[in-house]
Amino acid sequence: MTDDESAIRELIDTWMEASRAGDTEKVLGLMTDDVVFSVPGREPFGKAEFAAMSRAQQGMRVDGTAEIVELQVLGDWAFVRNRIDIAVTPPGAAQPLRRAGYTLTLLRKNGDGRWLLARDANLVDVKK
Amino acid sequence: MTDDESAIRELIDTWMEASRAGDTEKVLGLMTDDVVFSVPGREPFGKAEFAAMSRAQQGMRVDGTAEIVELQVLGDWAFVRNRIDIAVTPPGAAQPLRRAGYTLTLLRKNGDGRWLLARDANLVDVKK
Repeated sequence: MTDDESAIRELIDTWMEASRAGDTEKVLGLMTDDVVFSVPGREPFGKAEFAAMSRAQQGMRVDGTAEIVELQVLGDWAFVRNRIDIAVTPPGAAQPLRRAGYTLTLLRKNGDGRWLLARDANLVDVKK
Repeated sequence: MTDDESAIRELIDTWMEASRAGDTEKVLGLMTDDVVFSVPGREPFGKAEFAAMSRAQQGMRVDGTAEIVELQVLGDWAFVRNRIDIAVTPPGAAQPLRRAGYTLTLLRKNGDGRWLLARDANLVDVKK
């Protein structure tokens, strides 16, 4: 595994840990300022809207795993396909809502050599 | 616009025209052999399954447009974000089913310099 691949795997681990911990500031530090998130049923959105959505979900307990099914480094860009399995428990709920599915994610190496999430298409859906 | 950008725009136009014409063979020639399509609610699939699905839809009339909202060339790879608007009319139906949404698509330049579709995350959804 190259240094770039290791760094990207670590980025994804850190992202999932920070999400589980509800640490929105940390998650925001793992994406480029021009990041674009695409999800079904709505317009793509950027960093400010991601931050607002994350803060609105502060009371939820989120537990999840990301399994990298493909990772390719393309110079200063890279792409990853992840399989995500996630359980979201709203405050007071007995049972979590389980969601699963794939992402296609583009990452970019910034000036100081750090990899950051830059474009993300999220196909994670209610688990059947 | 660079030659690569022009070639990618032409690839997407050709893809949409061939899809409208129901020319599955032509569409299959526009993708890499290791292509991966991701859509919500099912496992990602490759070229053989794409071909089978397209042939099963032969009787449908498909009309659609793709608007490129972002295009970046990353050496021998490139990515595109498209806004797709599509109307699918099953045989005998009076009204088409309208679907709209975004894709995140990775393209790869092959040995002979042709750009081909390589990875695609399709968030096109029933239009509300």
